[in-house]
Amino acid sequence: MNTQSTRIGKHRLLEVAEKLFTQHGYQAVSIRDISSAAGVTNAALYYYFPNKDALFDEVIEHHADKLALHLQEAGSKADTPRKKLAAMLHEYATYVPEHRSLLFSLRRKTDDANRKQLDRHHRQIVNRMLAPIEKTLKSAAELGELRNLSSEYSPASLLLGLLHGMLQHQNNWSNCQIKTEDINLVIDIFWDGLSSK
Amino acid sequence: MNTQSTRIGKHRLLEVAEKLFTQHGYQAVSIRDISSAAGVTNAALYYYFPNKDALFDEVIEHHADKLALHLQEAGSKADTPRKKLAAMLHEYATYVPEHRSLLFSLRRKTDDANRKQLDRHHRQIVNRMLAPIEKTLKSAAELGELRNLSSEYSPASLLLGLLHGMLQHQNNWSNCQIKTEDINLVIDIFWDGLSSK
Repeated sequence: MNTQSTRIGKHRLLEVAEKLFTQHGYQAVSIRDISSAAGVTNAALYYYFPNKDALFDEVIEHHADKLALHLQEAGSKADTPRKKLAAMLHEYATYVPEHRSLLFSLRRKTDDANRKQLDRHHRQIVNRMLAPIEKTLKSAAELGELRNLSSEYSPASLLLGLLHGMLQHQNNWSNCQIKTEDINLVIDIFWDGLSSK
Repeated sequence: MNTQSTRIGKHRLLEVAEKLFTQHGYQAVSIRDISSAAGVTNAALYYYFPNKDALFDEVIEHHADKLALHLQEAGSKADTPRKKLAAMLHEYATYVPEHRSLLFSLRRKTDDANRKQLDRHHRQIVNRMLAPIEKTLKSAAELGELRNLSSEYSPASLLLGLLHGMLQHQNNWSNCQIKTEDINLVIDIFWDGLSSK
């Protein structure tokens, strides 16, 4: 097997696994389900991934990078930090609910010994997803539009928390429809709350 | 069985079930585990609850009312809306992480047909939990400290979203330690973001 076909094979397995985890969640999908849907043997799958957990970790990292790319592209069409953020939150609110089974699987059952490690991994994944939003908020602070928070805080996590609070109240995890005025309200509250007055 | 002992019996079963669901999550706990831990027969359990789903629904409602009571009590010791909210958020940030397996079980696996119903039920439970916070925010708006939002929005959900964003970034779901200054930052952002200027 040369490097080229190795990469293609692995990439396709990740895509198949992502689709199945997204549809059914982590618990309900077996290694056999994934190899069967991809039309390969279990052995072929174990060539790339030692176990289901390791496979899931790569799926979620792959997914995080895709979401970051989507956010990046959405933001690149706007010209001010505030408009970039509105476009990115809109993209996020459209994309994330469609993938919620996958994202909730990040919180898959584990014993307490592994809980901290899993939380740390979860945090890293979320940081990768939110990098374009964090970067835009940082440039808003550099432009003097927002005040700087101490480095232990993540403005992107606070902003996304606010958006989640809005989405959850409206049950928008199900219907994937968020109104532009809702996004604008979230950004207005955040901007006034963190303005550099 | 008279009404008194019926109530006590049911209440104890709910407490036992809540403890097991909190420790192990919804999926991992069976009706048999609960009846066994409570020292009753399966038949006794089925006398009160037609199935595990119905039992879980009562557990979570029972739990929501307990959390609301905790929040209410925490807030009652302070004298201004802002101080009441700080006390309630502190209580929430201490109480909720200890019960996260239970709360995450609200998002238990379901087919798409039941998803909307489950989301609606989830929303009702969250509204019951957050009622004391919603009420305090309403009185802050009546006092002119915060502006009124249109009735389709829930200020409490937005405020809690902000808190969740903070907690998640700090991995505070695990270590259950939130600093007073973190609570204050969340409230400052929210207050400035929604001030009635």
